Amino acid sequence: MAIGPIRYATKVDLTIPGGEQKQLHNRWHPDIPSSAKIAPGETVKIECLEWTGNQIKNTDNADDIRNVDLTKIHYLSGPFEIEGAEPGDCLVVEIKDVQPLERQPWGYCGVFNKENGGGFLERFYPEAAKAIFDFEGIHCTSRHLPHVRFTGLIHPGIMGTAPSQEILDEWNRRETELVVNESHLHGTTVAQLPEPRNVLPGSATGDIAAKIAKEGARTIPGRPEHGGNCDIKNLSRGSKAFFPVHVKGAKLSVGDLHFSQGDGEISFCGAVEMPGVITIKTSIIKDGVSKLSLKSPMFIAGDVPNQYGPSRYLTFEGFSVDEVGKQHFLCTTTAYRQACIRAIEYLRRFGYNDYQIYLLLSTAPIEGHVAGVVDIPNACTTIGLPMDIFDFDISPTSKFAKGDLDMGNCAFVTDYKHKLTYDFK
Amino acid sequence: MAIGPIRYATKVDLTIPGGEQKQLHNRWHPDIPSSAKIAPGETVKIECLEWTGNQIKNTDNADDIRNVDLTKIHYLSGPFEIEGAEPGDCLVVEIKDVQPLERQPWGYCGVFNKENGGGFLERFYPEAAKAIFDFEGIHCTSRHLPHVRFTGLIHPGIMGTAPSQEILDEWNRRETELVVNESHLHGTTVAQLPEPRNVLPGSATGDIAAKIAKEGARTIPGRPEHGGNCDIKNLSRGSKAFFPVHVKGAKLSVGDLHFSQGDGEISFCGAVEMPGVITIKTSIIKDGVSKLSLKSPMFIAGDVPNQYGPSRYLTFEGFSVDEVGKQHFLCTTTAYRQACIRAIEYLRRFGYNDYQIYLLLSTAPIEGHVAGVVDIPNACTTIGLPMDIFDFDISPTSKFAKGDLDMGNCAFVTDYKHKLTYDFK
Amino acid sequence: MAIGPIRYATKVDLTIPGGEQKQLHNRWHPDIPSSAKIAPGETVKIECLEWTGNQIKNTDNADDIRNVDLTKIHYLSGPFEIEGAEPGDCLVVEIKDVQPLERQPWGYCGVFNKENGGGFLERFYPEAAKAIFDFEGIHCTSRHLPHVRFTGLIHPGIMGTAPSQEILDEWNRRETELVVNESHLHGTTVAQLPEPRNVLPGSATGDIAAKIAKEGARTIPGRPEHGGNCDIKNLSRGSKAFFPVHVKGAKLSVGDLHFSQGDGEISFCGAVEMPGVITIKTSIIKDGVSKLSLKSPMFIAGDVPNQYGPSRYLTFEGFSVDEVGKQHFLCTTTAYRQACIRAIEYLRRFGYNDYQIYLLLSTAPIEGHVAGVVDIPNACTTIGLPMDIFDFDISPTSKFAKGDLDMGNCAFVTDYKHKLTYDFK
Amino acid sequence: MAIGPIRYATKVDLTIPGGEQKQLHNRWHPDIPSSAKIAPGETVKIECLEWTGNQIKNTDNADDIRNVDLTKIHYLSGPFEIEGAEPGDCLVVEIKDVQPLERQPWGYCGVFNKENGGGFLERFYPEAAKAIFDFEGIHCTSRHLPHVRFTGLIHPGIMGTAPSQEILDEWNRRETELVVNESHLHGTTVAQLPEPRNVLPGSATGDIAAKIAKEGARTIPGRPEHGGNCDIKNLSRGSKAFFPVHVKGAKLSVGDLHFSQGDGEISFCGAVEMPGVITIKTSIIKDGVSKLSLKSPMFIAGDVPNQYGPSRYLTFEGFSVDEVGKQHFLCTTTAYRQACIRAIEYLRRFGYNDYQIYLLLSTAPIEGHVAGVVDIPNACTTIGLPMDIFDFDISPTSKFAKGDLDMGNCAFVTDYKHKLTYDFK
Repeated sequence: MAIGPIRYATKVDLTIPGGEQKQLHNRWHPDIPSSAKIAPGETVKIECLEWTGNQIKNTDNADDIRNVDLTKIHYLSGPFEIEGAEPGDCLVVEIKDVQPLERQPWGYCGVFNKENGGGFLERFYPEAAKAIFDFEGIHCTSRHLPHVRFTGLIHPGIMGTAPSQEILDEWNRRETELVVNESHLHGTTVAQLPEPRNVLPGSATGDIAAKIAKEGARTIPGRPEHGGNCDIKNLSRGSKAFFPVHVKGAKLSVGDLHFSQGDGEISFCGAVEMPGVITIKTSIIKDGVSKLSLKSPMFIAGDVPNQYGPSRYLTFEGFSVDEVGKQHFLCTTTAYRQACIRAIEYLRRFGYNDYQIYLLLSTAPIEGHVAGVVDIPNACTTIGLPMDIFDFDISPTSKFAKGDLDMGNCAFVTDYKHKLTYDFK
Repeated sequence: MAIGPIRYATKVDLTIPGGEQKQLHNRWHPDIPSSAKIAPGETVKIECLEWTGNQIKNTDNADDIRNVDLTKIHYLSGPFEIEGAEPGDCLVVEIKDVQPLERQPWGYCGVFNKENGGGFLERFYPEAAKAIFDFEGIHCTSRHLPHVRFTGLIHPGIMGTAPSQEILDEWNRRETELVVNESHLHGTTVAQLPEPRNVLPGSATGDIAAKIAKEGARTIPGRPEHGGNCDIKNLSRGSKAFFPVHVKGAKLSVGDLHFSQGDGEISFCGAVEMPGVITIKTSIIKDGVSKLSLKSPMFIAGDVPNQYGPSRYLTFEGFSVDEVGKQHFLCTTTAYRQACIRAIEYLRRFGYNDYQIYLLLSTAPIEGHVAGVVDIPNACTTIGLPMDIFDFDISPTSKFAKGDLDMGNCAFVTDYKHKLTYDFK
Repeated sequence: MAIGPIRYATKVDLTIPGGEQKQLHNRWHPDIPSSAKIAPGETVKIECLEWTGNQIKNTDNADDIRNVDLTKIHYLSGPFEIEGAEPGDCLVVEIKDVQPLERQPWGYCGVFNKENGGGFLERFYPEAAKAIFDFEGIHCTSRHLPHVRFTGLIHPGIMGTAPSQEILDEWNRRETELVVNESHLHGTTVAQLPEPRNVLPGSATGDIAAKIAKEGARTIPGRPEHGGNCDIKNLSRGSKAFFPVHVKGAKLSVGDLHFSQGDGEISFCGAVEMPGVITIKTSIIKDGVSKLSLKSPMFIAGDVPNQYGPSRYLTFEGFSVDEVGKQHFLCTTTAYRQACIRAIEYLRRFGYNDYQIYLLLSTAPIEGHVAGVVDIPNACTTIGLPMDIFDFDISPTSKFAKGDLDMGNCAFVTDYKHKLTYDFK
Repeated sequence: MAIGPIRYATKVDLTIPGGEQKQLHNRWHPDIPSSAKIAPGETVKIECLEWTGNQIKNTDNADDIRNVDLTKIHYLSGPFEIEGAEPGDCLVVEIKDVQPLERQPWGYCGVFNKENGGGFLERFYPEAAKAIFDFEGIHCTSRHLPHVRFTGLIHPGIMGTAPSQEILDEWNRRETELVVNESHLHGTTVAQLPEPRNVLPGSATGDIAAKIAKEGARTIPGRPEHGGNCDIKNLSRGSKAFFPVHVKGAKLSVGDLHFSQGDGEISFCGAVEMPGVITIKTSIIKDGVSKLSLKSPMFIAGDVPNQYGPSRYLTFEGFSVDEVGKQHFLCTTTAYRQACIRAIEYLRRFGYNDYQIYLLLSTAPIEGHVAGVVDIPNACTTIGLPMDIFDFDISPTSKFAKGDLDMGNCAFVTDYKHKLTYDFK
């Protein structure tokens, strides 16, 4: 029975860098000290920074995106000790709500420069760009993406329990193996190994802080053993998630809140990023890892996602034949990239430029489905774009054309002249 | 104004092999003669065979699956000449309905033997298996998958326009390149090149038949230029699809009907396969390829898919770390396979064996989403399993356990003793 | 396991009057002989006539509606003896499918003349009118209602178990009481008492037929004890309904199929009326009336109704203040009528006439909600009109106006000059 | 572009009676002074009291409900002058969000004593009762209704523009007529006429305050000309409502926020009542009353209502035959009451008492539909009860029975011994 306000387990400061806030941390490691305790059954609020720890500003240029320091990210709230949780248990987390902070009713999405972050379409769109989104209750709009408005399917990009030392060692083993064996194949960074620079080990000091700095797993990838940076847009308000517990107290961390995101989070910087507050309630299923065969988190979504109606999506198909005609064998990633390109080519007809569309596909609640993964050699995926987020008709029978509406522009860096359209073949 | 019954553009015979029915064809080639004409604006019905052309029987063993002749498949209805369609146009196809044939109210799903077809999980489940599904109006059930019932999201697995000669040549070029360059890498067939054996070139004869036999593209993969075997479960009743036209008359073909399918069609043989009848209505957008930037088909789904409620799915997460702990770089295909495995491990607790679950995930309307494809090195996917298709509680808090219900078995080959559970790690 | 076609429990003839088909009946009475037996667990198909028993034709005038003989209606299929059902049991009926007959792919909606049938808005629209609907798979369109297309939420208007003699006597008592006490108040027929003229007592003859003719309850109203003519649009495909059993064998009857209907079925003649086939499967809950406190039927709807998205309805409000400014005390019926009028007034701006809109509101899947019934003196109701059933924009910000599209006309009687718009104040 | 927090147009005090807060008002009258200005296009927040103006406490007895002073209710926020709005315009109000106040995370529902307020089922349930609801993010639970949890479809019970003097006079005329002509028929208060006692005329003083006190329309009923107390649960977050403007500046008022409500708001005190904050954005359609034929408000709902899945409702049917067997002629109100009774009888089997169920049906998002209003003499309505709001199985095949779960009790007055079950026949 809560007669007074709900307790805040953590608060954040939007005016100083994330790296200076010791109730947060930016590595996965079993030795990061708990920042607070939460009792099972208790409903608590947890404030979180946006993922770059206050580096991005509400401006009309993308210099901050271009120059972002990617060693200073993912300052997570926690870890929280859930009283009574033991290794082998299942930690149940109900996401009771996620909201922006009243003191900052805006967020952003960025396209990283290919040299500093990149993203899913970096080979075509190498420049930095940015769109600011204003929050109006459940809706968001952007002056950089005119004629679009959508309801946020608000969710935490990152939520996870702490790894045990054994699991952490396994992560470092397998990711190192990838770096060693495949870096030359992909022509890009394939994984980010432990990096002592700019570690925030929570309140740890001395030898423990040093150990965390040396071994702590980076927060970029989600990982099967605990969740982490999964960026699952449907793990939203009202969801109930089931996490394996690997250390005493579970040590749950959360952060990287998104006001909205499309399936794939394709621009990497990536959703409508925002600081905010998440309300959770936890419980424990004793011995749940075994009972539920819980090797990875699973969840049951809430009952209030956006409902656009199945017939209100325009759906694009993508196959594993890339933009230069090369055939890839059942590569769902290639197929998804092609579906993105099909959507970009289509939306150009209304006057948006490619970067705007790239930002739109990253942030709007697009539905990315795996359609077929067995019909060799082509994987087939689909992207469903909700037509109702536009204030004009984007259907194939639309009367609108380029020039009928002023589509403005997204933000770019100040000193550059951009090619706004990529010539696919 | 249709006062009498709607016209059938094609009928099929369920009692003789598909290869003997010349109103059908089993290759993609511009020279396959049209089997019938359809006027834009006309509503017509088209009967279709199930994908193996009547090879599979309603029995309790999987010998027919084991021994299926995979050169005798995909006997498509058509090609249909859509009057007035010209290269460069967009052919709009409204799928007004898809239904089983009243004379055969059942279908099947198979797991192919690894040596003859295989599938998405062939490395774990190499044996042939089968489940027969009975159709009761909008629902289907299977004696081989007790305690499960679901509504069919009925759809054609294959629909596409004919390629031009140029497009056909490009297909053969790029798929040959794949076979030449990558066959050694994957340890399996990577693509199926033209194969004169058992070609059904429709009503073509002589030199034209020979040309089709020699060059005709195989029907297994969907392809970006025309659609084809996309296996998109949501391209279902009420959908409006937009196809590029490459040859005069468009030459639309359709077949491989599915009563239901899960995203991915993971077992390859694959959905609830059935003969049936599809009702379509077509129209033409002149110069639509250019107007709509239509490099691949797109569609708007119908308004009557199954509605289980977002909170009625149990959702599993899969990451691009495989079952032996190897890290794959942003491989969505691996991630999707892992999500399948998580679902299999989970459902075992109620007494189903792995093959049954594999068949279930292939056929039930599971939702496969691309969650994140940018958080190096891990792609993240999800599989949402609708809990309401079971007649008992499968939620994590369920009181049911193995042995509480008789889960029967699926069909296997007659002469084999099976390992029904794969030991993942 | 159904390998061959599903059994038909009843077939109908579309070429002769319903009154000549003795496998049907048009009264509720315990002594009407069963027309066929159905075993619990068996899936069967049942053909049904449209509700006037073949009186209405596919024409462009409404003379047949004007002259319809309303003593010759509701020829129901059945009654069916469900083996093993006893009084006090609950009969469970799963509606596995409802479809038009392949041999008649059209239906109709009528507005009755006020002197012969009337309807919810008869005081404003006293003339007969008609719209013919063509069925194209899951969709219907009408040449009398241009620019509208919707998916049928197909359902039986009538389904019910037979009354016991005691229940029948109670019906006759209370409806007679109403006729005696209130006929003078309403200025219209308030209830239809037993009427021997044109009785079809199924296969009964002699004294039993005479008893049925004398006492048999008319089929117009739904009644709480058994269901009957409920016209619940959501009792559609996939639904599971629970009926009290009052006589041995339950004696289930069904008919009056609707391809689509709006909440309220306001024109009375009323939905998209059609002959068709319903597929059902039954089971019995022994002593279910007591176990479930089952005084009236209840149901669980299927999972495939039309999904237009909650934000795709334009919703009108109606209050219990009538069109001449008279205040009614918490009269939900008045409030619902006012919501209808608001929708009519609104849709005129696009060029439809009042009769067309009346027909549209009767047939399209409008959502009629009870909003408030406690805020004295006003009841408040809402009508949600799905905007996606129109092929042009009907939203308040639409650019379309009267004259922009040709809205044609509905069918009227041949010898009359109509007032097409009612002047509400 | 909102960089800082969104502006509050009104704040409220939860610690003093509503009647002492002059930024509020509790009558409808054109002369109530505007409490603040709002510019079209501006997004503002508006705090509101709960409907009794702080009379109800978070306790376990219902004395406060029993003794509530019903002349001290509906202290509305506003009226707000919308700049530029003129009579004849349409005022568009987008409901961007509605939330509880962080400082009071709870609300309540009451059943009024029949002598002081009453409600839809007052003839059966004459006693006062209460349930307190705790808010946990999007969910609410009640210690007085165990085993139930649902997501709030949060909405304002009251929203409306000010009447012109002419409209106000018409209201008083027609409601007086009702009181004069029908009070003797219904045996209860039929309408509440102007009442000077406890008027809060906003900031008006002197003669204007006296005029408002004398003529001001009471706030209980919604009225067709402006909306008001409509209690439409679907006019929720994300909705866009269209109001006629009758006075310069529109003078929009809002209040009576509900965390959740069932269709009908049957207990009258009525929904989950709460103080809260509503975020709105307005715009003006010039001459919109004429353009849109806008005699009553209309709206387009938001895209995030609760989604339980159509097959997750248990639906009860109600007919216009009352509980003592009297037949009413097409009385939808009677039919809706009977559907409520069917639901009460059903839910008793799990151990809830009638008052608890009455409170549940008032607050949970039940769907109340008008099914048929033309099949004389019976109107037919349905109530859909979402099964997923219970943490145990309430379906007809449930294994649960009375006694299996502790259902606790709701709050009653301290000095009374209650009959908890009404004996319907």
